[in-house]
Amino acid sequence: MPKYKEVAQKIIQKINSNDMKQGDKLASIEELMKQFDVGKNTILNALTELEKQAYIYQVRGSGSFVRKHKREGYINITEVNGLRNNLQGFHLDAKLLDLKATKPTHEVMANLNIAENEEVYYVKRLRSIEGRKFSVEESYYLKSVVPYLNQQIVEDSIFNYLIDDLKIEPGFIDHFLRVGKLNKINADLLNLEPGDPTVLLESIFYLKNGQPFDYSIINYHYEESQFFIQGASYI
Amino acid sequence: MPKYKEVAQKIIQKINSNDMKQGDKLASIEELMKQFDVGKNTILNALTELEKQAYIYQVRGSGSFVRKHKREGYINITEVNGLRNNLQGFHLDAKLLDLKATKPTHEVMANLNIAENEEVYYVKRLRSIEGRKFSVEESYYLKSVVPYLNQQIVEDSIFNYLIDDLKIEPGFIDHFLRVGKLNKINADLLNLEPGDPTVLLESIFYLKNGQPFDYSIINYHYEESQFFIQGASYI
Repeated sequence: MPKYKEVAQKIIQKINSNDMKQGDKLASIEELMKQFDVGKNTILNALTELEKQAYIYQVRGSGSFVRKHKREGYINITEVNGLRNNLQGFHLDAKLLDLKATKPTHEVMANLNIAENEEVYYVKRLRSIEGRKFSVEESYYLKSVVPYLNQQIVEDSIFNYLIDDLKIEPGFIDHFLRVGKLNKINADLLNLEPGDPTVLLESIFYLKNGQPFDYSIINYHYEESQFFIQGASYI
Repeated sequence: MPKYKEVAQKIIQKINSNDMKQGDKLASIEELMKQFDVGKNTILNALTELEKQAYIYQVRGSGSFVRKHKREGYINITEVNGLRNNLQGFHLDAKLLDLKATKPTHEVMANLNIAENEEVYYVKRLRSIEGRKFSVEESYYLKSVVPYLNQQIVEDSIFNYLIDDLKIEPGFIDHFLRVGKLNKINADLLNLEPGDPTVLLESIFYLKNGQPFDYSIINYHYEESQFFIQGASYI
Protein backbone atom coordinates (compact mmCIF):
# COMPACT_ATOMS: atom_id res chain seq x y z
CA MET A 1 0.00 0.00 0.00
CA PRO A 2 1.40 3.45 -0.88
CA LYS A 3 2.62 5.51 2.09
CA TYR A 4 -0.04 8.21 1.64
CA LYS A 5 -2.83 5.60 1.94
CA GLU A 6 -1.31 4.32 5.18
CA VAL A 7 -1.26 7.88 6.49
CA ALA A 8 -4.86 8.40 5.30
CA GLN A 9 -5.95 5.28 7.21
CA LYS A 10 -4.15 6.48 10.35
CA ILE A 11 -5.88 9.85 10.14
CA ILE A 12 -9.26 8.07 9.85
CA GLN A 13 -8.38 6.04 12.95
CA LYS A 14 -7.53 9.27 14.79
CA ILE A 15 -10.83 10.89 13.73
CA ASN A 16 -12.71 7.86 15.05
CA SER A 17 -10.72 7.23 18.23
CA ASN A 18 -10.85 10.92 19.20
CA ASP A 19 -14.58 10.91 18.38
CA MET A 20 -14.14 14.02 16.23
CA LYS A 21 -17.28 15.71 14.91
CA GLN A 22 -18.32 17.46 11.70
CA GLY A 23 -16.38 20.72 11.44
CA ASP A 24 -13.61 19.74 13.90
CA LYS A 25 -10.26 20.91 12.59
CA LEU A 26 -7.48 18.47 11.75
CA ALA A 27 -3.87 19.18 12.71
CA SER A 28 -1.99 21.40 10.25
CA ILE A 29 0.06 19.96 7.41
CA GLU A 30 3.26 20.70 9.33
CA GLU A 31 1.96 18.98 12.47
CA LEU A 32 0.80 15.96 10.44
CA MET A 33 4.26 15.76 8.79
CA LYS A 34 5.82 15.57 12.27
CA GLN A 35 3.23 13.16 13.67
CA PHE A 36 3.67 10.65 10.86
CA ASP A 37 7.30 11.46 10.06
CA VAL A 38 6.62 11.85 6.32
CA GLY A 39 7.11 14.56 3.71
CA LYS A 40 4.70 17.28 2.67
CA ASN A 41 3.63 15.53 -0.56
CA THR A 42 2.61 12.39 1.33
CA ILE A 43 0.40 14.48 3.64
CA LEU A 44 -1.09 16.42 0.70
CA ASN A 45 -1.87 13.16 -1.11
CA ALA A 46 -3.37 11.65 2.05
CA LEU A 47 -5.61 14.70 2.51
CA THR A 48 -6.71 14.59 -1.14
CA GLU A 49 -7.57 10.90 -0.69
CA LEU A 50 -9.53 11.65 2.50
CA GLU A 51 -11.43 14.45 0.78
CA LYS A 52 -12.19 12.11 -2.13
CA GLN A 53 -13.55 9.59 0.36
CA ALA A 54 -15.53 12.37 2.06
CA TYR A 55 -13.89 11.96 5.46
CA ILE A 56 -12.76 15.59 5.43
CA TYR A 57 -13.23 18.85 3.55
CA GLN A 58 -10.41 21.26 2.86
CA VAL A 59 -10.90 25.01 3.10
CA ARG A 60 -8.28 27.02 1.25
CA GLY A 61 -6.30 29.13 3.71
CA SER A 62 -7.81 27.63 6.85
CA GLY A 63 -7.09 23.90 6.89
CA SER A 64 -8.86 20.55 6.85
CA PHE A 65 -12.04 19.72 8.73
CA VAL A 66 -13.87 16.53 9.64
CA ARG A 67 -16.90 15.50 7.59
CA LYS A 68 -19.23 13.37 9.65
CA HIS A 69 -23.00 13.23 9.83
CA LYS A 70 -24.93 13.01 13.05
CA ARG A 71 -27.42 10.28 12.28
CA GLU A 72 -26.93 6.78 13.65
CA GLY A 73 -27.86 3.52 12.02
CA TYR A 74 -27.54 4.70 8.42
CA ILE A 75 -25.70 2.47 5.94
CA ASN A 76 -23.09 4.43 4.01
CA ILE A 77 -23.65 3.36 0.41
CA THR A 78 -20.75 5.40 -0.90
CA GLU A 79 -18.22 3.55 1.26
CA VAL A 80 -16.82 0.11 0.50
CA ASN A 81 -18.00 -2.16 3.28
CA GLY A 82 -20.22 0.62 4.58
CA LEU A 83 -22.22 -1.95 6.50
CA ARG A 84 -19.34 -2.92 8.72
CA ASN A 85 -18.00 0.60 9.21
CA ASN A 86 -21.22 2.46 9.69
CA LEU A 87 -23.24 0.15 11.84
CA GLN A 88 -20.55 -0.17 14.49
CA GLY A 89 -22.18 -0.67 17.83
CA PHE A 90 -25.03 -2.67 16.27
CA HIS A 91 -25.09 -6.47 16.42
CA LEU A 92 -24.85 -7.75 12.86
CA ASP A 93 -25.30 -11.33 11.73
CA ALA A 94 -25.09 -13.04 8.33
CA LYS A 95 -26.59 -16.49 7.70
CA LEU A 96 -25.34 -18.34 4.65
CA LEU A 97 -28.24 -19.65 2.56
CA ASP A 98 -26.43 -20.85 -0.56
CA LEU A 99 -22.91 -21.08 -1.97
CA LYS A 100 -22.07 -22.67 -5.30
CA ALA A 101 -20.09 -22.31 -8.51
CA THR A 102 -22.47 -21.90 -11.42
CA LYS A 103 -23.02 -20.56 -14.95
CA PRO A 104 -24.09 -16.91 -15.14
CA THR A 105 -27.65 -15.86 -15.97
CA HIS A 106 -28.16 -13.27 -18.74
CA GLU A 107 -28.54 -10.58 -16.09
CA VAL A 108 -25.22 -11.56 -14.51
CA MET A 109 -23.51 -11.76 -17.92
CA ALA A 110 -24.67 -8.24 -18.76
CA ASN A 111 -23.60 -6.75 -15.44
CA LEU A 112 -20.22 -8.49 -15.20
CA ASN A 113 -19.65 -8.07 -18.94
CA ILE A 114 -18.84 -11.78 -19.43
CA ALA A 115 -19.66 -14.62 -21.82
CA GLU A 116 -21.87 -17.57 -20.84
CA ASN A 117 -18.95 -20.00 -20.48
CA GLU A 118 -17.40 -17.97 -17.64
CA GLU A 119 -18.13 -19.48 -14.21
CA VAL A 120 -19.22 -17.45 -11.21
CA TYR A 121 -19.58 -18.11 -7.50
CA TYR A 122 -23.11 -17.54 -6.28
CA VAL A 123 -23.51 -16.57 -2.62
CA LYS A 124 -26.84 -15.92 -0.92
CA ARG A 125 -26.93 -14.53 2.60
CA LEU A 126 -29.58 -13.34 5.03
CA ARG A 127 -28.41 -10.45 7.20
CA SER A 128 -29.84 -9.45 10.56
CA ILE A 129 -29.29 -6.38 12.69
CA GLU A 130 -29.94 -6.63 16.41
CA GLY A 131 -31.70 -9.93 15.70
CA ARG A 132 -34.12 -8.36 13.18
CA LYS A 133 -34.12 -9.54 9.55
CA PHE A 134 -32.46 -6.84 7.57
CA SER A 135 -31.57 -7.88 4.02
CA VAL A 136 -31.27 -10.76 1.55
CA GLU A 137 -28.03 -10.47 -0.40
CA GLU A 138 -27.20 -12.40 -3.57
CA SER A 139 -23.69 -11.96 -4.97
CA TYR A 140 -21.96 -13.26 -8.09
CA TYR A 141 -18.16 -13.34 -8.06
CA LEU A 142 -16.21 -13.93 -11.25
CA LYS A 143 -14.36 -17.24 -10.73
CA SER A 144 -11.41 -16.14 -12.87
CA VAL A 145 -10.80 -13.37 -10.29
CA VAL A 146 -12.03 -15.16 -7.14
CA PRO A 147 -10.93 -18.77 -7.77
CA TYR A 148 -11.97 -20.17 -4.38
CA LEU A 149 -14.67 -19.50 -1.77
CA ASN A 150 -15.89 -21.65 1.09
CA GLN A 151 -18.43 -21.35 3.89
CA GLN A 152 -15.95 -20.06 6.45
CA ILE A 153 -14.69 -17.27 4.16
CA VAL A 154 -18.21 -16.25 3.22
CA GLU A 155 -19.41 -16.18 6.84
CA ASP A 156 -16.37 -14.14 7.83
CA SER A 157 -15.65 -11.19 5.50
CA ILE A 158 -15.37 -11.86 1.78
CA PHE A 159 -13.81 -8.43 1.26
CA ASN A 160 -11.05 -8.99 3.79
CA TYR A 161 -10.31 -12.33 2.09
CA LEU A 162 -10.19 -10.72 -1.36
CA ILE A 163 -7.85 -7.96 -0.24
CA ASP A 164 -5.66 -9.66 2.37
CA ASP A 165 -5.40 -13.18 0.94
CA LEU A 166 -6.09 -12.94 -2.78
CA LYS A 167 -4.39 -9.50 -3.03
CA ILE A 168 -7.23 -8.23 -5.18
CA GLU A 169 -7.26 -4.47 -5.55
CA PRO A 170 -10.85 -3.21 -5.62
CA GLY A 171 -11.16 -0.07 -7.72
CA PHE A 172 -14.63 1.45 -7.65
CA ILE A 173 -18.32 0.59 -7.39
CA ASP A 174 -21.51 1.45 -9.27
CA HIS A 175 -24.77 1.21 -7.33
CA PHE A 176 -28.30 1.17 -8.75
CA LEU A 177 -31.11 1.70 -6.28
CA ARG A 178 -34.86 1.57 -6.64
CA VAL A 179 -37.98 0.52 -4.79
CA GLY A 180 -38.94 -2.99 -5.81
CA LYS A 181 -41.49 -5.54 -4.68
CA LEU A 182 -40.59 -8.64 -2.70
CA ASN A 183 -41.13 -12.07 -4.22
CA LYS A 184 -42.47 -14.92 -2.06
CA ILE A 185 -39.05 -16.43 -1.24
CA ASN A 186 -37.44 -13.20 -0.08
CA ALA A 187 -40.61 -11.99 1.67
CA ASP A 188 -40.62 -15.21 3.73
CA LEU A 189 -36.96 -14.70 4.64
CA LEU A 190 -37.61 -11.11 5.80
CA ASN A 191 -40.89 -11.93 7.60
CA LEU A 192 -42.79 -9.71 5.19
CA GLU A 193 -45.57 -10.29 2.65
CA PRO A 194 -45.00 -10.92 -1.08
CA GLY A 195 -45.51 -7.61 -2.88
CA ASP A 196 -44.30 -5.54 0.07
CA PRO A 197 -41.86 -2.78 -0.95
CA THR A 198 -38.14 -3.35 -0.72
CA VAL A 199 -35.12 -1.18 -1.33
CA LEU A 200 -33.48 -3.02 -4.21
CA LEU A 201 -29.77 -2.24 -4.43
CA GLU A 202 -27.73 -3.64 -7.31
CA SER A 203 -23.97 -3.09 -7.08
CA ILE A 204 -21.17 -3.73 -9.54
CA PHE A 205 -17.67 -3.89 -8.03
CA TYR A 206 -14.73 -3.19 -10.32
CA LEU A 207 -11.03 -3.97 -10.06
CA LYS A 208 -8.55 -1.09 -10.24
CA ASN A 209 -8.15 -1.85 -13.97
CA GLY A 210 -11.87 -1.33 -14.58
CA GLN A 211 -12.88 -5.00 -14.87
CA PRO A 212 -16.14 -5.85 -13.07
CA PHE A 213 -15.70 -8.86 -10.75
CA ASP A 214 -18.65 -8.85 -8.35
CA TYR A 215 -22.34 -8.20 -9.02
CA SER A 216 -24.67 -8.18 -6.07
CA ILE A 217 -28.41 -7.71 -5.60
CA ILE A 218 -29.69 -6.82 -2.15
CA ASN A 219 -33.32 -6.76 -1.05
CA TYR A 220 -33.52 -4.58 2.07
CA HIS A 221 -36.34 -4.77 4.62
CA TYR A 222 -37.98 -1.42 3.93
CA GLU A 223 -38.64 -0.66 7.58
CA GLU A 224 -35.18 -1.62 8.84
CA SER A 225 -32.90 0.09 6.34
CA GLN A 226 -31.83 3.68 5.79
CA PHE A 227 -28.95 4.94 3.74
CA PHE A 228 -26.36 7.67 3.87
CA ILE A 229 -24.88 8.88 0.59
CA GLN A 230 -22.07 11.38 0.32
CA GLY A 231 -22.49 13.69 -2.65
CA ALA A 232 -19.64 14.89 -4.80
CA SER A 233 -18.26 18.35 -4.45
CA TYR A 234 -19.10 20.70 -7.27
CA ILE A 235 -17.06 21.08 -10.45
CA MET B 1 -12.82 29.07 -11.37
CA PRO B 2 -9.34 27.51 -11.13
CA LYS B 3 -7.82 26.51 -14.47
CA TYR B 4 -7.83 22.77 -13.65
CA LYS B 5 -11.60 22.85 -13.04
CA GLU B 6 -12.13 24.53 -16.42
CA VAL B 7 -10.06 21.77 -18.03
CA ALA B 8 -12.02 19.13 -16.08
CA GLN B 9 -15.30 20.58 -17.39
CA LYS B 10 -13.97 20.56 -20.95
CA ILE B 11 -12.93 16.92 -20.63
CA ILE B 12 -16.44 16.06 -19.39
CA GLN B 13 -17.89 17.86 -22.43
CA LYS B 14 -15.57 15.84 -24.68
CA ILE B 15 -16.61 12.56 -23.03
CA ASN B 16 -20.27 13.46 -23.60
CA SER B 17 -20.03 14.94 -27.09
CA ASN B 18 -17.90 12.02 -28.33
CA ASP B 19 -20.37 9.64 -26.65
CA MET B 20 -17.49 7.82 -24.95
CA LYS B 21 -18.31 4.58 -23.10
CA GLN B 22 -17.15 2.91 -19.90
CA GLY B 23 -13.56 1.77 -20.39
CA ASP B 24 -12.80 4.10 -23.34
CA LYS B 25 -9.33 5.56 -22.98
CA LEU B 26 -8.75 9.29 -22.59
CA ALA B 27 -5.96 11.06 -24.45
CA SER B 28 -2.56 10.85 -22.72
CA ILE B 29 -1.37 13.55 -20.33
CA GLU B 30 0.95 14.93 -23.01
CA GLU B 31 -1.87 15.06 -25.58
CA LEU B 32 -4.19 16.74 -23.07
CA MET B 33 -1.47 19.32 -22.29
CA LYS B 34 -1.33 20.18 -26.01
CA GLN B 35 -5.12 20.14 -26.51
CA PHE B 36 -5.79 22.57 -23.68
CA ASP B 37 -2.49 24.43 -23.84
CA VAL B 38 -1.80 24.03 -20.11
CA GLY B 39 0.97 22.57 -17.95
CA LYS B 40 1.28 19.05 -16.62
CA ASN B 41 0.15 19.95 -13.08
CA THR B 42 -3.10 21.44 -14.38
CA ILE B 43 -3.85 18.22 -16.27
CA LEU B 44 -2.93 16.06 -13.26
CA ASN B 45 -5.20 18.15 -11.02
CA ALA B 46 -8.02 18.00 -13.57
CA LEU B 47 -7.72 14.19 -13.77
CA THR B 48 -7.71 13.89 -9.97
CA GLU B 49 -10.85 16.03 -9.85
CA LEU B 50 -12.52 13.89 -12.54
CA GLU B 51 -11.63 10.70 -10.68
CA LYS B 52 -13.01 12.21 -7.47
CA GLN B 53 -16.24 12.98 -9.33
CA ALA B 54 -16.23 9.44 -10.75
CA TYR B 55 -16.13 10.52 -14.40
CA ILE B 56 -12.92 8.55 -14.97
CA TYR B 57 -10.66 5.98 -13.35
CA GLN B 58 -6.89 6.10 -13.56
CA VAL B 59 -4.83 2.94 -14.02
CA ARG B 60 -1.20 3.34 -13.03
CA GLY B 61 1.02 2.85 -16.05
CA SER B 62 -1.79 2.71 -18.62
CA GLY B 63 -3.73 5.95 -18.49
CA SER B 64 -7.20 7.29 -17.72
CA PHE B 65 -10.46 5.64 -18.72
CA VAL B 66 -14.08 6.74 -18.85
CA ARG B 67 -16.42 5.69 -16.08
CA LYS B 68 -19.98 5.55 -17.34
CA HIS B 69 -22.79 3.16 -16.61
CA LYS B 70 -25.09 1.77 -19.26
CA ARG B 71 -28.48 2.27 -17.69
CA GLU B 72 -30.72 5.11 -18.82
CA GLY B 73 -33.13 7.10 -16.73
CA TYR B 74 -31.28 6.74 -13.42
CA ILE B 75 -30.83 9.83 -11.26
CA ASN B 76 -27.23 10.24 -10.15
CA ILE B 77 -27.51 11.00 -6.45
CA THR B 78 -23.77 11.49 -6.05
CA GLU B 79 -23.69 14.34 -8.55
CA VAL B 80 -24.76 17.91 -7.85
CA ASN B 81 -27.77 18.60 -10.06
CA GLY B 82 -27.83 14.93 -11.06
CA LEU B 83 -31.39 15.37 -12.22
CA ARG B 84 -30.47 17.80 -14.98
CA ASN B 85 -27.31 16.02 -16.06
CA ASN B 86 -28.51 12.46 -15.93
CA LEU B 87 -31.96 12.68 -17.35
CA GLN B 88 -30.87 14.45 -20.52
CA GLY B 89 -33.14 13.45 -23.32
CA PHE B 90 -36.12 13.22 -20.99
CA HIS B 91 -38.68 16.01 -20.80
CA LEU B 92 -38.52 17.44 -17.28
CA ASP B 93 -40.92 19.94 -15.77
CA ALA B 94 -41.10 21.64 -12.37
CA LYS B 95 -44.30 23.30 -11.11
CA LEU B 96 -43.91 25.79 -8.28
CA LEU B 97 -46.38 25.06 -5.46
CA ASP B 98 -45.14 27.42 -2.76
CA LEU B 99 -42.42 30.01 -2.18
CA LYS B 100 -42.10 32.07 0.99
CA ALA B 101 -39.69 33.38 3.59
CA THR B 102 -40.45 31.78 6.94
CA LYS B 103 -39.15 30.75 10.36
CA PRO B 104 -37.46 27.33 10.46
CA THR B 105 -39.13 24.28 12.01
CA HIS B 106 -37.18 22.24 14.58
CA GLU B 107 -36.28 19.74 11.86
CA VAL B 108 -34.92 22.52 9.64
CA MET B 109 -33.04 24.10 12.57
CA ALA B 110 -31.36 20.77 13.35
CA ASN B 111 -30.39 20.05 9.75
CA LEU B 112 -29.16 23.55 8.90
CA ASN B 113 -27.62 23.94 12.35
CA ILE B 114 -29.34 27.29 12.94
CA ALA B 115 -31.24 29.08 15.70
CA GLU B 116 -34.99 29.76 15.53
CA ASN B 117 -34.59 33.46 14.72
CA GLU B 118 -32.79 32.72 11.42
CA GLU B 119 -35.09 33.06 8.42
CA VAL B 120 -35.24 30.56 5.58
CA TYR B 121 -36.81 30.49 2.12
CA TYR B 122 -39.26 27.62 1.72
CA VAL B 123 -39.74 26.31 -1.82
CA LYS B 124 -42.12 23.48 -2.74
CA ARG B 125 -42.07 22.07 -6.27
CA LEU B 126 -43.77 19.22 -8.10
CA ARG B 127 -41.53 17.63 -10.72
CA SER B 128 -42.67 15.65 -13.73
CA ILE B 129 -40.77 13.52 -16.19
CA GLU B 130 -42.28 12.96 -19.61
CA GLY B 131 -45.53 14.34 -18.22
CA ARG B 132 -45.66 11.78 -15.38
CA LYS B 133 -45.60 12.99 -11.76
CA PHE B 134 -42.15 12.25 -10.45
CA SER B 135 -41.37 13.93 -7.12
CA VAL B 136 -42.47 16.50 -4.57
CA GLU B 137 -39.51 18.58 -3.45
CA GLU B 138 -39.44 20.86 -0.40
CA SER B 139 -36.31 22.94 0.10
CA TYR B 140 -35.21 25.33 2.82
CA TYR B 141 -32.53 27.90 1.93
CA LEU B 142 -30.78 29.90 4.61
CA LYS B 143 -31.73 33.54 3.97
CA SER B 144 -28.40 34.85 5.25
CA VAL B 145 -26.75 32.94 2.37
CA VAL B 146 -29.54 33.18 -0.24
CA PRO B 147 -30.97 36.67 0.44
CA TYR B 148 -33.42 36.72 -2.49
CA LEU B 149 -35.52 34.22 -4.44
CA ASN B 150 -38.48 34.77 -6.73
CA GLN B 151 -40.76 32.65 -8.88
CA GLN B 152 -38.70 33.08 -12.04
CA ILE B 153 -35.45 32.03 -10.37
CA VAL B 154 -37.09 29.04 -8.73
CA GLU B 155 -38.73 27.87 -11.97
CA ASP B 156 -35.43 28.27 -13.80
CA SER B 157 -32.45 26.71 -11.99
CA ILE B 158 -31.84 27.74 -8.39
CA PHE B 159 -28.36 26.23 -8.55
CA ASN B 160 -27.32 28.25 -11.59
CA TYR B 161 -28.59 31.38 -9.82
CA LEU B 162 -26.66 30.56 -6.65
CA ILE B 163 -23.43 29.92 -8.52
CA ASP B 164 -23.57 32.41 -11.40
CA ASP B 165 -25.35 35.34 -9.76
CA LEU B 166 -24.82 35.03 -6.02
CA LYS B 167 -21.29 33.60 -6.52
CA ILE B 168 -22.00 30.98 -3.87
CA GLU B 169 -19.46 28.16 -3.84
CA PRO B 170 -21.22 24.87 -3.02
CA GLY B 171 -18.89 22.52 -1.21
CA PHE B 172 -20.39 19.09 -0.60
CA ILE B 173 -23.66 17.28 0.10
CA ASP B 174 -24.95 14.70 2.58
CA HIS B 175 -27.90 12.58 1.48
CA PHE B 176 -30.14 10.43 3.67
CA LEU B 177 -32.39 7.97 1.90
CA ARG B 178 -35.07 5.62 3.14
CA VAL B 179 -38.43 4.20 2.15
CA GLY B 180 -41.20 6.28 3.67
CA LYS B 181 -44.96 6.43 3.39
CA LEU B 182 -46.81 9.19 1.53
CA ASN B 183 -49.09 11.54 3.43
CA LYS B 184 -52.41 12.60 1.89
CA ILE B 185 -51.14 15.91 0.44
CA ASN B 186 -48.13 14.43 -1.34
CA ALA B 187 -50.02 11.29 -2.42
CA ASP B 188 -52.61 13.50 -4.13
CA LEU B 189 -49.86 15.44 -5.89
CA LEU B 190 -48.25 12.24 -7.18
CA ASN B 191 -51.55 10.53 -8.10
CA LEU B 192 -50.91 7.83 -5.52
CA GLU B 193 -52.70 6.67 -2.36
CA PRO B 194 -51.84 7.86 1.15
CA GLY B 195 -49.61 5.21 2.75
CA ASP B 196 -48.08 4.18 -0.56
CA PRO B 197 -44.30 3.78 -0.39
CA THR B 198 -42.03 6.64 -1.42
CA VAL B 199 -38.30 7.04 -1.71
CA LEU B 200 -37.66 9.75 0.84
CA LEU B 201 -34.43 11.62 0.14
CA GLU B 202 -33.20 14.27 2.58
CA SER B 203 -30.20 16.30 1.43
CA ILE B 204 -28.04 18.84 3.21
CA PHE B 205 -25.98 21.12 0.95
CA TYR B 206 -22.88 22.74 2.43
CA LEU B 207 -20.80 25.71 1.37
CA LYS B 208 -17.10 25.19 0.73
CA ASN B 209 -16.42 26.37 4.30
CA GLY B 210 -18.60 23.59 5.73
CA GLN B 211 -21.67 25.71 6.55
CA PRO B 212 -25.00 24.04 5.64
CA PHE B 213 -27.19 26.41 3.56
CA ASP B 214 -29.87 24.22 1.93
CA TYR B 215 -31.92 21.38 3.39
CA SER B 216 -34.29 19.57 1.06
CA ILE B 217 -36.77 16.73 1.44
CA ILE B 218 -37.90 14.91 -1.69
CA ASN B 219 -40.73 12.38 -1.92
CA TYR B 220 -40.17 10.35 -5.09
CA HIS B 221 -42.90 8.44 -6.88
CA TYR B 222 -41.74 4.89 -6.13
CA GLU B 223 -42.55 3.56 -9.58
CA GLU B 224 -41.00 6.44 -11.51
CA SER B 225 -37.66 6.88 -9.77
CA GLN B 226 -34.42 4.94 -9.81
CA PHE B 227 -31.05 6.06 -8.59
CA PHE B 228 -27.44 5.69 -9.55
CA ILE B 229 -24.82 6.04 -6.82
CA GLN B 230 -21.10 6.01 -7.43
CA GLY B 231 -19.19 4.29 -4.68
CA ALA B 232 -15.85 5.46 -3.36
CA SER B 233 -12.68 3.73 -4.36
CA TYR B 234 -11.05 1.70 -1.64
CA ILE B 235 -8.54 3.04 0.91
